[in-house]
Amino acid sequence: MTTKERVLTGITTSGTPHLGNYVGAIKPAIIASRDPSLDSFFFLADYHALIKCQDPAQVRQSTKEIAATWLALGLDAENCTFYRQSDVPEITELSWILTCMTAKGLMNRSHAYKAAVQVNEETGEDADNAITMGLFSYPILMAADILMFNGQRIPVGKDQIQHVEMARVIAQRFNHHYGELFTLPEAQVDEDVAVLSGLDGRKMSKSYNNTIPLFLTEKKLQKQINKIKTNLLEPGEPKDPNGSTVFQIWQAFASEQQTEMMRQQFAQGIGWGQAKKELFALINDEVGPARARYDELMADGDYIESVLQKGGIKARAYASELLIKARVSVGIGAIQS
Amino acid sequence: MTTKERVLTGITTSGTPHLGNYVGAIKPAIIASRDPSLDSFFFLADYHALIKCQDPAQVRQSTKEIAATWLALGLDAENCTFYRQSDVPEITELSWILTCMTAKGLMNRSHAYKAAVQVNEETGEDADNAITMGLFSYPILMAADILMFNGQRIPVGKDQIQHVEMARVIAQRFNHHYGELFTLPEAQVDEDVAVLSGLDGRKMSKSYNNTIPLFLTEKKLQKQINKIKTNLLEPGEPKDPNGSTVFQIWQAFASEQQTEMMRQQFAQGIGWGQAKKELFALINDEVGPARARYDELMADGDYIESVLQKGGIKARAYASELLIKARVSVGIGAIQS
Repeated sequence: MTTKERVLTGITTSGTPHLGNYVGAIKPAIIASRDPSLDSFFFLADYHALIKCQDPAQVRQSTKEIAATWLALGLDAENCTFYRQSDVPEITELSWILTCMTAKGLMNRSHAYKAAVQVNEETGEDADNAITMGLFSYPILMAADILMFNGQRIPVGKDQIQHVEMARVIAQRFNHHYGELFTLPEAQVDEDVAVLSGLDGRKMSKSYNNTIPLFLTEKKLQKQINKIKTNLLEPGEPKDPNGSTVFQIWQAFASEQQTEMMRQQFAQGIGWGQAKKELFALINDEVGPARARYDELMADGDYIESVLQKGGIKARAYASELLIKARVSVGIGAIQS
Repeated sequence: MTTKERVLTGITTSGTPHLGNYVGAIKPAIIASRDPSLDSFFFLADYHALIKCQDPAQVRQSTKEIAATWLALGLDAENCTFYRQSDVPEITELSWILTCMTAKGLMNRSHAYKAAVQVNEETGEDADNAITMGLFSYPILMAADILMFNGQRIPVGKDQIQHVEMARVIAQRFNHHYGELFTLPEAQVDEDVAVLSGLDGRKMSKSYNNTIPLFLTEKKLQKQINKIKTNLLEPGEPKDPNGSTVFQIWQAFASEQQTEMMRQQFAQGIGWGQAKKELFALINDEVGPARARYDELMADGDYIESVLQKGGIKARAYASELLIKARVSVGIGAIQS
């Protein structure tokens, strides 16, 4: 038996997948899911979604859209383990066990929590105003997600490195106190993966309301791309690709050769309208083929559900085994004679 | 169908049951368990135990001792629902859902947390030194314990009133945001229930190491009782029952008439040795008959386990139904077409 490296990725089900998600997380994940040398785990993080999103209809819709997106783009659910977090109740149980092994001081240092406190302080509110325990405890649930499956490599964006490090710290404390049980995870930040800019030039993110959703009709996709903020230079005037959102998104989808060609067109003064037309064509070539499959899947919830059910069974086979060990370690379990 | 009042009591499995537990919690609970007009829930709070006790052998031993104690004293497991918290995984799952509906500010105000911070500040440590997220999040798990079973009346000591109130606040926020689901629990503090003094005159508590375990051999019970701290008054000198631990424990076990008689004996100058001998006899009369049954049960872990398994099935029948409702409320569940 060869030991495959275990790679784990979760996506929070609180929004509609957009081009930024596609480039930063979904595309590399799809490739990993098809790689027979990897043991990949992909999950819909619906229990994380509750932290940010208290609209049940939106959580439901997002879960469906994200699952349909991954499947439409060719995620290989046979070769990997593709599941919904809430189908593995072992995760919240492990989360409590880890909660008892987590220093409160560690959570105090979480960037996400500190950022929320800073906003409160700047606006003259109580430090913890409107902050829920969900936000504060979030790194523990994420540690459970990772440690539950002995995840080794965790591909994340830079903003998530700290959370993987916290999972490591919690695992170390547990292993030290109760004996070796958890694999220590490592964050993997792929510097090559683009952080996509959004319509307004800031990072493309649901919270900035500046996203281009992944699966739009061609007409709507072109319309959204036309909304990308540009400067006022006329056609014929040379344009600087650096700092141009159009160019930055182009680069994320293009080959090196295509990027070079667009760089030349910028120097030659391509008009913004023309550049956006070409950007549309480039993106549409990449995502267009999956669009029909996505629409089919969105109309067939039962099929998506059946795939997730199968994945949940696969995930629980690992999870239940590890949870039993964790329970025994801490003294939870059947009464002995 | 008559609606019975639902009463819920948990005991943390981190120590050996002592006379203080017996008088304060176990005895009233046993009576309640046999009352056909009540729908009583009793549980071994082993997931709470992990907050205070990181010794797995001790958690295991305590779980067994507490279960054996309740059964030996006549808990009616047919009339009530008697289960182990960790046999109901729905509880930790609900706990996460509630975590996302709990203000961090609410937890900041917890007495138990504030007391730990105060100790740190007095000793010049960081405020959160050695405080785990288990201690900090404890009221949320307790809220899940209560709300999971729509507990109406929660008999608690005074130090636990705040936690029941927090469960109420969390339930109200959930009901307000997602629609009515949880019954609002009420703390019930029985002012008549004695808080027993320990060997050194402080409240009898494992943390003070001043307890008299409930099931000792007669010889050891007498020995422990002899250790109760008294003043230096000789036999023949009148003694003040107020502030006397011997008298206080006597009162907790005696009838009114017996209490009156002992008060007279104190006035008449009963010797401490004699008073302790009589106290031993009184306590031994009450707990002695269950002692053999306790020893039998401690030697038959399989039987205890089988009782808990049955109780777990009963508890999960309620829990799984409520959890499904909670999940639907927040948007977690099967994909719809």
